[in-house]
Amino acid sequence: MFKWGMLSVALALSGVADAQTKETVDLDMVSRIRQEAFHRSQVMATFSHLTEQIGPRLTNSPAMGEANTWTRSKFNEWGLVNVHDEAFDAFGRGWEFSNASVELLSPRVAPLYALPKAWTPGTNGPVEGEVIKVEIKKLADLDQYKGKIAGRILLLNDARDYERATKSDSHRHDDAGLAELQVFAVPKDVADAKADRAKKAKEYLEKQELTRATNAFFAEQGVLATISISGWDNGIIRVGGGGSRKAGEPVGVPELAMMAEHYNQLVRAVDQKQAVKLRVNVQARFTDTQDQPGYNTLAEIRGSGKADEIVMLGAHMDSWHTGTGAADNAAGVAVMMEAMRILKAVGAKPKRTIRVALWSGEEQGLIGSQDYVSKHFARYPEPTDPAQLTLPASMREPTGALQRQRDYDKFSAYFNMDNGSGRFRGIYAQENLAAVPIFEAWLAPFHDVGATTVATRNTGSTDHIAFDRVGLPGFQFIQDRLDYFTNVHHSNLDTWDHAEPEDLKQAAAIVASFVYNAAMREEKLPRKPLLTP
Amino acid sequence: MFKWGMLSVALALSGVADAQTKETVDLDMVSRIRQEAFHRSQVMATFSHLTEQIGPRLTNSPAMGEANTWTRSKFNEWGLVNVHDEAFDAFGRGWEFSNASVELLSPRVAPLYALPKAWTPGTNGPVEGEVIKVEIKKLADLDQYKGKIAGRILLLNDARDYERATKSDSHRHDDAGLAELQVFAVPKDVADAKADRAKKAKEYLEKQELTRATNAFFAEQGVLATISISGWDNGIIRVGGGGSRKAGEPVGVPELAMMAEHYNQLVRAVDQKQAVKLRVNVQARFTDTQDQPGYNTLAEIRGSGKADEIVMLGAHMDSWHTGTGAADNAAGVAVMMEAMRILKAVGAKPKRTIRVALWSGEEQGLIGSQDYVSKHFARYPEPTDPAQLTLPASMREPTGALQRQRDYDKFSAYFNMDNGSGRFRGIYAQENLAAVPIFEAWLAPFHDVGATTVATRNTGSTDHIAFDRVGLPGFQFIQDRLDYFTNVHHSNLDTWDHAEPEDLKQAAAIVASFVYNAAMREEKLPRKPLLTP
Repeated sequence: MFKWGMLSVALALSGVADAQTKETVDLDMVSRIRQEAFHRSQVMATFSHLTEQIGPRLTNSPAMGEANTWTRSKFNEWGLVNVHDEAFDAFGRGWEFSNASVELLSPRVAPLYALPKAWTPGTNGPVEGEVIKVEIKKLADLDQYKGKIAGRILLLNDARDYERATKSDSHRHDDAGLAELQVFAVPKDVADAKADRAKKAKEYLEKQELTRATNAFFAEQGVLATISISGWDNGIIRVGGGGSRKAGEPVGVPELAMMAEHYNQLVRAVDQKQAVKLRVNVQARFTDTQDQPGYNTLAEIRGSGKADEIVMLGAHMDSWHTGTGAADNAAGVAVMMEAMRILKAVGAKPKRTIRVALWSGEEQGLIGSQDYVSKHFARYPEPTDPAQLTLPASMREPTGALQRQRDYDKFSAYFNMDNGSGRFRGIYAQENLAAVPIFEAWLAPFHDVGATTVATRNTGSTDHIAFDRVGLPGFQFIQDRLDYFTNVHHSNLDTWDHAEPEDLKQAAAIVASFVYNAAMREEKLPRKPLLTP
Repeated sequence: MFKWGMLSVALALSGVADAQTKETVDLDMVSRIRQEAFHRSQVMATFSHLTEQIGPRLTNSPAMGEANTWTRSKFNEWGLVNVHDEAFDAFGRGWEFSNASVELLSPRVAPLYALPKAWTPGTNGPVEGEVIKVEIKKLADLDQYKGKIAGRILLLNDARDYERATKSDSHRHDDAGLAELQVFAVPKDVADAKADRAKKAKEYLEKQELTRATNAFFAEQGVLATISISGWDNGIIRVGGGGSRKAGEPVGVPELAMMAEHYNQLVRAVDQKQAVKLRVNVQARFTDTQDQPGYNTLAEIRGSGKADEIVMLGAHMDSWHTGTGAADNAAGVAVMMEAMRILKAVGAKPKRTIRVALWSGEEQGLIGSQDYVSKHFARYPEPTDPAQLTLPASMREPTGALQRQRDYDKFSAYFNMDNGSGRFRGIYAQENLAAVPIFEAWLAPFHDVGATTVATRNTGSTDHIAFDRVGLPGFQFIQDRLDYFTNVHHSNLDTWDHAEPEDLKQAAAIVASFVYNAAMREEKLPRKPLLTP
């Protein structure tokens, strides 16, 4: 059944390509791009600077500011133009941490491994307290703890059974896996999808309300710190934000995520009525007193002939804070920067303007890219419901017809990278069937480095969606997963060593070639019909 | 080729079994053992106490002493007799640590994850210093650093490429894997094996000499601390001992092992001539000023009829220090203790005396078990070469004929567990072909819980070898590896959560049944010819 479906889809697409493609590719230019990408690469130098010199780049942290500055300086050095940062609305405060230490003092003495959640306060020196476990699923659950948690360290989760692996933690697509990607699963109807989004938004708002109330309650009750279980096993610390980035909102108490093997041990000891005592020391600080705007970094190679038309490429430069933001997403940033460098190095003279964007605020809901698209290309009317307005832009439900901005009709396409550091194996066409034969032609010179597949399906969850949802062609590449979703995504292992230099070189060559092709072809990229939400 | 060999071996063994087995098994007793093991298990309570109440049990540490005391109390509580500790010669000093913290101060600020090597000194409060990388492979390499490393923190290893997994990190034997275990690979001739051992001993002695000289040199030169790369990737800290456990020997300076992803970053920064600065704080201490003996814990169920004949079971109780010594080897200890508890609970009245041994000093070279065997059963004459005498007992080359002690002829067999916490799938017969049909008969009532395989091959590296090398039947079980050699062996992940309660229950039932059978059968276990080394 599956195989049959797969084959017919493949045949159908191939038929489309044969009938419609008159797409020409400048193979001389592709050769020059490949040579620069493969033999004179600077992608690892860029990747290294971002990850190990600058380090993790939490949105609005000093390191993110440093990354804006450094990437601008590189763009200028490479001869790009219109290099600048573009602000988006008051994102919140910056935050950074320098150390975290948790010591088990009783029933025995041992160091435990935990790291703070972003946007939570430090401890202001070591604090010691007894550990208790709390169960807070809804607002009413707080009452029972009134007057009982002062000076305590709280465990917020149940213990979790160790999940034994059944497959390798590193994955590369094989032919069968790539073929499977070409099957398009018929999606939900718009009405059902809208209902799903409404449900998600409601849950999000309820969770936000509970978080605010809990943060205020814990601080007011004199809780010393809270500890949650890491999202993954095997000693990996996987954690995002806590507290609040918004000035004026309660930031609560120091919050940490602890490696599962240590966390579970605390829960077992507490369950056995042992007196569990910890010493916690978190050095963390908010770097602003007031909300600050976030900043995307942009730069261009100006076109000639169709200079007012725009081809874009980008990746988010912000990251979570416990690793060095390597696969998520210094990899994407380094590849997009390298693609621009390559185009300059090979002397490309594109007809359309090629613009690179290094987004911020992606991890908090595609905030930087949404804002940019809404200002430059198109937006839906802001909701009037105040609850909807507290949602991240990517979750807000449009309340009227699309409002096109000046450059909407000048826009050709956007290419994004944010699925880890693995090799490109093709591209998702986002249901834009007219783009399929074009991409097939553009991908042909890269079959020999493993990029072969144009899939009609959608892929989501990152900055190309900011374009896609206003009807603009926004795409993301199919990548080998490597250990993105097993070891590194949002974890302390998101570091330099888990990336593969050859994969990043290959990706940069393909991106440079794609944006060059998009900038040179006669027409802008075809658009799919806008699915009004 | 392989398959052909495998099948013929399997057929041959099966023929042996058919022809020779008259082995009878008391299935009523096996049923009672299984019921006690499966329905009224206490193996996890024992395992939990050892790992999470007592914690890691480095040989001669206070926690190891606590484990000796606690296991004696449990044996007494269960009605075992002759419960006592037996000392072995001055092992060295005890050591323990309570915390370790490494902060990157420059080129950026970040916490790094590292834990101390056992038997190395603490820092006596936080110390700060610049990082340099050294290359020390031989004594002459020290000279170049004279006067150049005062106040520095030294990196001892090169960076290591991330090793991407190709298989699941957790493994259970399938039928093909078990069949493969039944192929016996013809080993090296004794002369060649002896030459190999001599080479290993020479390398060991050279390494010891280099370690002693380096420890003295670093301390004398005023080095602040050294950092090595963890043995494994993915944030796991895998580390054993450093410094020296022997009073009077130079302990050197604080030594840490750092997670690979952090260590490699330091090497890259130093290689790029960046000024790398760390703050290191290690709280560790030697708990004795003089060498102390180590202690094995022993207990018995006295036999009736053949009470002076001995069946033994055991596992090492000592562990490394960064995890909680769970798979290595609280699992083995809990299973062996549970087997004794089960036998008492079902009212077993064995003919031979059943003696359980919880060894110490295993991780430093099977020291506790070797000493015990040499005092009770047999020993080879001590070497006269002073260099040989500085080797761990397990590496010393015999210099004459075996000297049998009083109980040599009273000994039947020893059963060991020390291959992690995974399910028993059979037993290694250690080239003792006469034992094969016996074990096959004993294993038959456990086919339904996955234990089916009697392999003729040898397995090594733990305490049954102390018996095997003096010609006594000493065995170890075939176990599912789980993630023993990928995540937990000698690492900070060697914790409660990586064990499977059902596997430990199954193992305890099989051990109880095996030792009961050995204690009841007409004859002692057959012995293989002694391969005089």
